[in-house]
Order: sequence, then C-alpha cells, then structure tokens
Amino acid sequence: MIRIIKVHSSDNVVIPVQDAPKGTEVASGIKTIQDIPQGHKIALKDFRKGDEVVRYGVVLGSLLKDVLAGGHIDENMLEMPQPPGLDEMPWGKSTWVCPGEPAGNAAGTDKPLPVTFEGYEVPGFPFAGTRNILGMMTSVQCVAGIMNIAVEKIRKELLPKYPNVDDVTVLNHNYGCGCAIGAPDAVVPIRTLRSLLRNPNFGGEVMVVALGCEKLTLEMLLEPEENNPENVIVLQNISGFKAMIDAVFSMAEKKLRKLNERRRVTLPLEKLCVGVQCGGSDAFSGITANPAAGYASDLLVRAGGTVLFPEVTEVRDGVQYLSERCESWELSQKLGQEMKWYDAYLERGGADLSANPSPGNKAGGISNIMEKTMGAIAKSGSAPIAGVLAAGELVSQKGLNFAATPASDFHCGTLMLASGTTLQVFTTGRGTPYGLAAAPVIKVGSRTELKNLWEDIIDIDAGTIAEGKETIAEAGQRLYKMIVDTASGHHKPFAEMYRLYNDLCIFDPAPVT
Amino acid sequence: MIRIIKVHSSDNVVIPVQDAPKGTEVASGIKTIQDIPQGHKIALKDFRKGDEVVRYGVVLGSLLKDVLAGGHIDENMLEMPQPPGLDEMPWGKSTWVCPGEPAGNAAGTDKPLPVTFEGYEVPGFPFAGTRNILGMMTSVQCVAGIMNIAVEKIRKELLPKYPNVDDVTVLNHNYGCGCAIGAPDAVVPIRTLRSLLRNPNFGGEVMVVALGCEKLTLEMLLEPEENNPENVIVLQNISGFKAMIDAVFSMAEKKLRKLNERRRVTLPLEKLCVGVQCGGSDAFSGITANPAAGYASDLLVRAGGTVLFPEVTEVRDGVQYLSERCESWELSQKLGQEMKWYDAYLERGGADLSANPSPGNKAGGISNIMEKTMGAIAKSGSAPIAGVLAAGELVSQKGLNFAATPASDFHCGTLMLASGTTLQVFTTGRGTPYGLAAAPVIKVGSRTELKNLWEDIIDIDAGTIAEGKETIAEAGQRLYKMIVDTASGHHKPFAEMYRLYNDLCIFDPAPVT
Repeated sequence: MIRIIKVHSSDNVVIPVQDAPKGTEVASGIKTIQDIPQGHKIALKDFRKGDEVVRYGVVLGSLLKDVLAGGHIDENMLEMPQPPGLDEMPWGKSTWVCPGEPAGNAAGTDKPLPVTFEGYEVPGFPFAGTRNILGMMTSVQCVAGIMNIAVEKIRKELLPKYPNVDDVTVLNHNYGCGCAIGAPDAVVPIRTLRSLLRNPNFGGEVMVVALGCEKLTLEMLLEPEENNPENVIVLQNISGFKAMIDAVFSMAEKKLRKLNERRRVTLPLEKLCVGVQCGGSDAFSGITANPAAGYASDLLVRAGGTVLFPEVTEVRDGVQYLSERCESWELSQKLGQEMKWYDAYLERGGADLSANPSPGNKAGGISNIMEKTMGAIAKSGSAPIAGVLAAGELVSQKGLNFAATPASDFHCGTLMLASGTTLQVFTTGRGTPYGLAAAPVIKVGSRTELKNLWEDIIDIDAGTIAEGKETIAEAGQRLYKMIVDTASGHHKPFAEMYRLYNDLCIFDPAPVT
Repeated sequence: MIRIIKVHSSDNVVIPVQDAPKGTEVASGIKTIQDIPQGHKIALKDFRKGDEVVRYGVVLGSLLKDVLAGGHIDENMLEMPQPPGLDEMPWGKSTWVCPGEPAGNAAGTDKPLPVTFEGYEVPGFPFAGTRNILGMMTSVQCVAGIMNIAVEKIRKELLPKYPNVDDVTVLNHNYGCGCAIGAPDAVVPIRTLRSLLRNPNFGGEVMVVALGCEKLTLEMLLEPEENNPENVIVLQNISGFKAMIDAVFSMAEKKLRKLNERRRVTLPLEKLCVGVQCGGSDAFSGITANPAAGYASDLLVRAGGTVLFPEVTEVRDGVQYLSERCESWELSQKLGQEMKWYDAYLERGGADLSANPSPGNKAGGISNIMEKTMGAIAKSGSAPIAGVLAAGELVSQKGLNFAATPASDFHCGTLMLASGTTLQVFTTGRGTPYGLAAAPVIKVGSRTELKNLWEDIIDIDAGTIAEGKETIAEAGQRLYKMIVDTASGHHKPFAEMYRLYNDLCIFDPAPVT
C-alpha cells in the first residue's frame, strides 16, 4: 500500500510517498499509467497543454503538453508563472492562528511546552548566547595560515583550563583584500563581518587578527572604542612566526579568562534568536520537514522568541504570500526592495531563477522554483512577519524576520550567524552533513529513509508525517523541544557532537579585483 | 647616509631607501624640502600642475598641483593617464636579452646554475610535480565538515605508512552549489576546479568526494572515464557518519598506496612550471623583489622552464608594455580580450581600478595603479610572452605565460595552482605569511627591514638590492637556486615548514543564488 499525499484541497496533483509503479491507485478511480518516482507529481485529471497545475493551493505553472490522469508531471513540462510586481504588494493579511497558549501542553501529553531556556546573557544585547565560544576574527584571509596553527594550540593547551568555555574558533573568511572595497555592494560583506563579531555566542568579546595592509581596515570593521591592543593584533607589527603564535595565544588566554566567567541563566525565549534554513530539498521537504520547522517556529514566536528565515531565491516567486504576512506597508516595501536588488544582481551576472532548483531538487520531484518556493515558505510557519533584514544586517525586531540572503547554504548560514542567530534549524530532503562551529545546527530530515540511512547525522526525522505516524504539530513540538534543549546546552546535535563544521562563506556581490 | 634609487634614466623622481628627513641630499644640488617617508617619491625638479611624473621610464600621471624640487609626490597629487586601447596593441617587440647561457655560471662563482631538477613525473602530462601529495577534491562545500575530520585521521593514521607521500590535503572550496551554474561566467569556476584536480603535485590520482545533489555534477567535474567508484565517493549513498569517514579513509589508502610508488627523477627544467605572484606590495617591490623574481624567471625560461605571471588588475594600465612582448598577433589579441572581459566585470559591479592599490600599498609609497603596474610587471622579467591563459585554464605552452587572474592573493594563488604551477614565488613588501598546501611557496621580501622582522617567514631578502649589497642578477640567481632546490625537495620554504596554508578560493564571477 503506497501512501499518497495531497497538500491542499484545490490541488490537482498528488505525491506518492514511495515509488508508484504503473497501476497504483492514487485517488478514487485513478491509477498511475506509468512508473512514477517517489515524491514526483501525479496528474489527478486529464490535463491539456496550457492547463494550470495546482499544488499547495497555488499555481505551479502551465503545462507545455497534454498529460493524462495518472501520468507523471516532471520538470520539463511546466511553464513558470510570471513573478508578481513588487511595488504594491498586499500586507497585513496574516492569517496566523497562534498554535495554542505559550505554556500549552505538548501534544498527547499533559506536560506544558517550555517557555524559558538556559542561555548566556550578553551585557547590553537583546539576545543571549546558546554557547560560550571564543570567536577569533580575521580581517583578511592572509592571516589564515597563522590562525589555523594558533587555534590548534589554543584548543589543546588553553581550552581545557577554562571549562566554562565550549570552544574556540577562527572566523576565517575570504574577504578583506583583493576586493572592490569602494563598490556599492561592498556594504554587504563589510556589514556581515561587523555583525558576525557580535554574535551572542561570542559573549561580546572582540578579538581581531589583522595583517596590516589589507583593504578592509580595522576602522571599517570595529567601533573606535574596540579598536585597541586589547582586542586587535596586527601581524605586520610582530617579529616572526613564533611571536605571532604567542601573541594570538596570549590574547586568546585573556579572552578565555573573561568568557570563563559566563554562566547560563534561566531566560525567557525572548532572548533566543533561531535561524531556520533549508538545503538539499526534495518534494517531501515542503510537506514534512518544512511544515514541522514552521510549526516549531510558530511556537517560538508565540513564546516571544525570534526566528529568522532566509533565502531570497527560494521565496522570490511566492513573495506575494510573504508580503501578505508583513505587519506594515513599510515592511512589505522593504521586502520588495530586497527582491529587486537580488533580481538586478542576478540579471547583471546573466543568471536567472531557472538556476534554482538544483539537479538534486529536480531528481527529488521539485519541478520549478514556485514548487520549491511554497515548500520553502512552509518553514516560516504562519506567524506575521515582524522584520525584514538586508543580508548580514543585525536583527533588532523580535518575532519572525525574513533575512534577505542567497539560498546557497554556506552563504546563507554565515549571513544568519551575522544577523544574530545562535542556533540553526536546517531542513533537508536529499541530506547534507552541514554544521557550524559558531552555533549548533539541528538537522531535520524530510523522509524516514534519510534518517535510516543517516541515523547519526539527521537529528529529527519529519518523515513520520508522510508515513502517517505523526502529525505536523507533533513533529513540530518535538523539534521545538530539541531547540530549547539544545539552546540550553542539554543536548548536542550530531554536527556539534562530531564537530562537522562548514566554512564561513562571506556573500560579496561586488567584484574581486 | 640615505640611499636614493632612480630606476630609469628618464625618471624625474627618486625614491629614498630610508625615511628622508628635510634637508637630505637626493641629487646633485637637490635637497628634500620636507620629511619624506621611505619608498615615497621625491621630485627631482620644480613641477607645475599638469606636468608628467616619470618613473620606470613611463608616465605615472599628471600632477594636480605644483611641487617644488625636493618635495613629496603622494597618491593624492596624480591624475592617472588614460588606459590604452585594447584592439590593436603592438606585439613581437620583445627586447629580451637572454641572461647568459643556460648553464652559465652563478654570479661571482665558477659554479654553473642548475638546469635540471628532481621532480615527480606524471604519465602523459607535460609538467612534473615538485611534491607528492594526495589531493582530495570536494565537489561542494557541503561535504567540508566530513572531509576535515577525515583528513586529520588520514594524516595521523595513514600518512606515516606511506613515507614517499609528502602530505594529504582537502581541496575544500566554496563552489559547487548555491551558484548560477548556467550563467555565462560559470565557465571560470568549473574550469578552475577541473584543472585543479590535474595539478602535477597530485600525481594524476583523482579523488572526489561529492554530496550527491549539488549543482556541480560529477559529469561537469570529471572526464567520463574518471567518474567511477574508484575515484568518487557520494555521501548521499553512504549510511551515516562513521561509514562516510571509513569510505574516505579507505579510498585515501588506495590512492596513497599508488602515490607511494612515485619517485623523484632528474628532469630538465622544461618539466617545471612556476608561478610568480605578488601581494602586499610597497614602493620597493618594484625595484628589489620583483626585478629579482623577474631575473629568476628569465633564467627559468632560458633553461626551457615555464613561468606563469598573473594579475589582470595589476598589469591593466601597462598592458601595452606586455602586449609588445607577445610573440604573435593572436596572443596580443587574447591579452586584449582578457582585459576587456575584466573591465566589463568590474564595471558591472560598479568597481573601478582605483580600488587598487590598497591602503597598505599607498602607505608604502605607491601612488596609483600605473606605478604598481610597472613594479608588478617587473616580476615577469623581460622574456617574450609565449602564452596567455584565461582564469583557471591549464597551461600548455612552455615559456613565459600571462595568467589572466584577479590580483586577490587567494583567488590568484588558487587559479595558478589550477593552471598547473607546482611551486609559487610570492614577492611582498608589506609582508604576508601566505602559503599553500598544494605547492611550496617561496616568499621574497622587498626590504631588509621586513626580513629582519619576519626572519622565519620571508625566505629570500631582496632588500639587499636597495642596500647596494647585491645586484638584481645576484639576488635573482639566489632565488633561482632556491626555486630549483625547493622544486627538487632539497629545501622547504618557511610556509611549508610551519604548514602555513591559506584556503583555496575559487574565482566565481557569476552570481550566488
């Protein structure tokens, strides 16, 4: 018996949870007329060329050829709908139904959901850390070689002496020189690095290692009161290899001593900022992992927490559905501006949205960006949008924020750290071992097969939803509890346990020089 | 007594080797009329606004204000000359004077210069390796976390069993997904990664670790006959963390076993391909380190070797002087095309050439890109240009090649590895600890102060030339001998000794999606 999923009552396609051989019944009186792979779309009626295919209750596109009921609709058969105009989008029409009270019971139990976590406060900062990490920033990639040697020594010889500090990491990146620092778009990478330093997981301790002749000057990176020998090492002022390592080691020790004084305290979820991104999506992402993440996001927002959901290219074709949820006209305008900026950026480089979805997405059954979009938007739940952040902009508004980042996992993850997330939820269909040194990453898989294959990489299996074993609410609550446990330091996701850390990747839309 | 340097007989400025206080005699009857920093330009005559400033025998620009003899000419006083037209540049006018016979004696000794080296041949490949390294390529950054864990284990547990293998490295990078893979400029990163795999230091052993759903497919990265389970691991086909590490470990062992069979053999320098780049330049770079590198380059070319010199933005304003040295009209046209491509790329991003030189360059006395250009071109010596390579294009022509890369040290170094260099010479004035895991890097300092400060980071002090202690030819021969010794495995530069390795950095001129 193959399980068939129809997301919205108006949909005219369905999705099989397993491969559906020819002759599989998919609806009353309709059988597949060919073998159809797991997650791919099956026609519920006889379509004519030009007919609209509806999924998630929205039009994915018009058919380029006739398809009979029970036939396979693949990525080569759909013409994309025109993206909507950006100047006057609807706003203030959120249909959010807050999922129960803040301290409501978990589904199927009589235990209320947690509304506090154990975090590390940062003086003067609205959000708290989930980890206590020394983040040593480089102002330019030139110094990476020295820092990679230094951090190993620090981790081995110093870190064990400061048991309240979780880790030490180098914020290595490829920006800082050889870049068009005066170009209009240089604002993005510079803002990203400035914000990154301020991630609450670094406890407000600023440590920057510079070369000395890079284009990204310390004045651009730091506030005047931060730019001093307590926080900054300039290698060109130091005599040789050993002295460089010693200087980094010695400053790290001072910073570790301070960080070691930090203690977790019980805090309301207002102090927590979580990112929810996706990568390696398949057709199940939009019906299992992403709605579960969306449910957890709604629970966090309900409890006063802040959630960032990102990825311009993932939401672009459904942006009217996001705009509807913006709480003000100004926010919907800012959302439109960010889309326009990205449209122009892609056009300049001769790219278009057909570059997304990826071959893996398509193999998983996602035909076009509209289909991916509706599945991607699902991870934002249904809460109203309280803020829109430019790439790398530090979050200031509590509640649900859209972060205007690329969809590229590495760029997106780095930009969300910069915006202030101290924990990421990462939903995946095809699977990725993604992780970050600066913040724990909880991976949510869209299919139980993925969890079975990657038992110790996927933290939460949302495939239970497709299997009929759990509701979206139940999986969402399970994720919510793991978020709070992880934020509190009571749980380590697999990426953190195994130290599976991806490199930071700075989004620099300006040219390399 | 302060040493004063005049590069060309027609120059109307000179450079002090140390800071020149007011009243320092700089030429017969001319004294400085103000304090002038080391390396900065001093007027040899009374200049009027609009007069041309000449250095290296070429016009650096026109003065924006009057400057009296003995006065300081800084970066705010010069108007740049118009860049030349690119369509019909001169060619075939190389004035190369081959510096002696291939087996000529080293200056001041009766020992001839070496014309062979001990290298690792690669079957079917025109160039040989200088090191024997297992290079494990990632097809996308998603797998970096797994690879970083795997490589540590391999280095610790496997490498000692294969004593003929120098090292194992992960060719981590930020390309592969989240990119506009269909954009016209995507050809650059894809070509770069394809070429990088073929660097002779990796001995022709192909090992790629993929995720499975990335945009950069294995078909794009590999030849059909390479794309098989002997060479490729796809993480999405492997069950969990431990099995992933085991799979990488096990394939690495097979590759190490093969690489361990390689032996150094005596080869003519025709089998050697060396890159010569510069970074953190100052006013001395162009009169000490770069001419010394250029002399060594001429010696290598004389002996049949191949030298790549890179950096479009560094040569752009003196490109007519390069074109003159092209051996054919076609080469001068290709050179012009590469310049046009880069001009358009920079313009598209709102950047212009004033983004170069960097603040550090300017502090070191370089006023504008023309001055930096002439100093940068000096590192190519004076040999005719036998080839022009697009960014990441594999070298095929023996002799001197111009590689059309960005000037960014990290992008440039990666692109030169991709083009096939197995050893880099890196000249620096301000100083950088730059190094690469895939090829030894010899750092040549422009000032003796830098060598004194960074005794164990700078391999060759060319400041001796400014001090009058060595001629360009002597310093160039010293460098040449270190190149051959290093290529042969008889010498390790400091970056290699301390394992100071910069990250690879793929030049992707197309948008992030």
